[in-house]
Amino acid sequence: MSFDPSLHDPEPETLALGRFLELRRDGRWEFVRRVRSTGAVFVVALTPQAEIVLVEQYRVPLRARCIELPAGIVGDEPQHADESSAASALRELEEETGYSGPLAEPLLRGPTASGMSSELIDFYLVRDVLRTGPGGGVPGEEDITVHVVPLPEAADWLDERQRGGCMVEPRVYAGLWFAERSLRGPSR
Amino acid sequence: MSFDPSLHDPEPETLALGRFLELRRDGRWEFVRRVRSTGAVFVVALTPQAEIVLVEQYRVPLRARCIELPAGIVGDEPQHADESSAASALRELEEETGYSGPLAEPLLRGPTASGMSSELIDFYLVRDVLRTGPGGGVPGEEDITVHVVPLPEAADWLDERQRGGCMVEPRVYAGLWFAERSLRGPSR
Repeated sequence: MSFDPSLHDPEPETLALGRFLELRRDGRWEFVRRVRSTGAVFVVALTPQAEIVLVEQYRVPLRARCIELPAGIVGDEPQHADESSAASALRELEEETGYSGPLAEPLLRGPTASGMSSELIDFYLVRDVLRTGPGGGVPGEEDITVHVVPLPEAADWLDERQRGGCMVEPRVYAGLWFAERSLRGPSR
Repeated sequence: MSFDPSLHDPEPETLALGRFLELRRDGRWEFVRRVRSTGAVFVVALTPQAEIVLVEQYRVPLRARCIELPAGIVGDEPQHADESSAASALRELEEETGYSGPLAEPLLRGPTASGMSSELIDFYLVRDVLRTGPGGGVPGEEDITVHVVPLPEAADWLDERQRGGCMVEPRVYAGLWFAERSLRGPSR
């Protein structure tokens, strides 16, 4: 099920080491590793009124604005180096959106891009979030626009945003699946 | 909404050019571009019995097996260079899973990893797929295991697979959202 030595080099090769990304080769596979990071977090944040909190920001690789789940890199800032993944999720949510919640419930740990990167994302559900701050990101982050969208209207709203020229990160729809499921039944 | 010249270099820099991936820098952003490719396709394939078709394969960057939507790179093979994205989706579905469908309905075009890559994925819904071949991938692809899972059982089945040591690609849950929606109402 797990490690298959026949597909790996004894020592993966660094093809290039940037400030943020390392291009590596292992056997016949090339992929990127995020430097100075232990993973990423994505947050499915729901208000008591069953609204989902989404962020919109300009993405240089896409040359376009993109609507996404609130998210962050874990372990990339020295002052938060010892922070747990769940604590990072709550902090990134508050920094990006101004919404705070009491508890980050783990949903899933899965790959960012299974054929292209070694990065893993922890998905969390945060219920009963409340607006406690301004949001918009910490200094140095791009400008972030916060959207609070009622779940029953989210699909149509996302369609409309795309018609307006915004991209939608596909994992937003995974977020909708987890959100709708959390409202239907008991916690995972 | 779209291109913001203040965040880009006049000419993005190539930090490294591999066989499959190029590490680029544009302004202060580093990201990867897939070489010899015009995009990717992910397929939400449903049988007439409301089962979803998933694939499991070993992923070198993760050093683990991973359950994913059937998927492929567009434009990376000379013999399929002129193929449309929708045609590529139907072909990749058949090659990987042995299931064929009459029509690839577009669901979404969105980024693979908005902060890390310029790649875009076209998501398609293919209804009424039938087993017409062996599947398992073309020569040179890793061994692919095909799973055909009834939609109402998919969440529990994915949980069980994770407990067994398999990873689950988070966009599988986006696939479940689109699949459940397609069964509830009219086509998007």
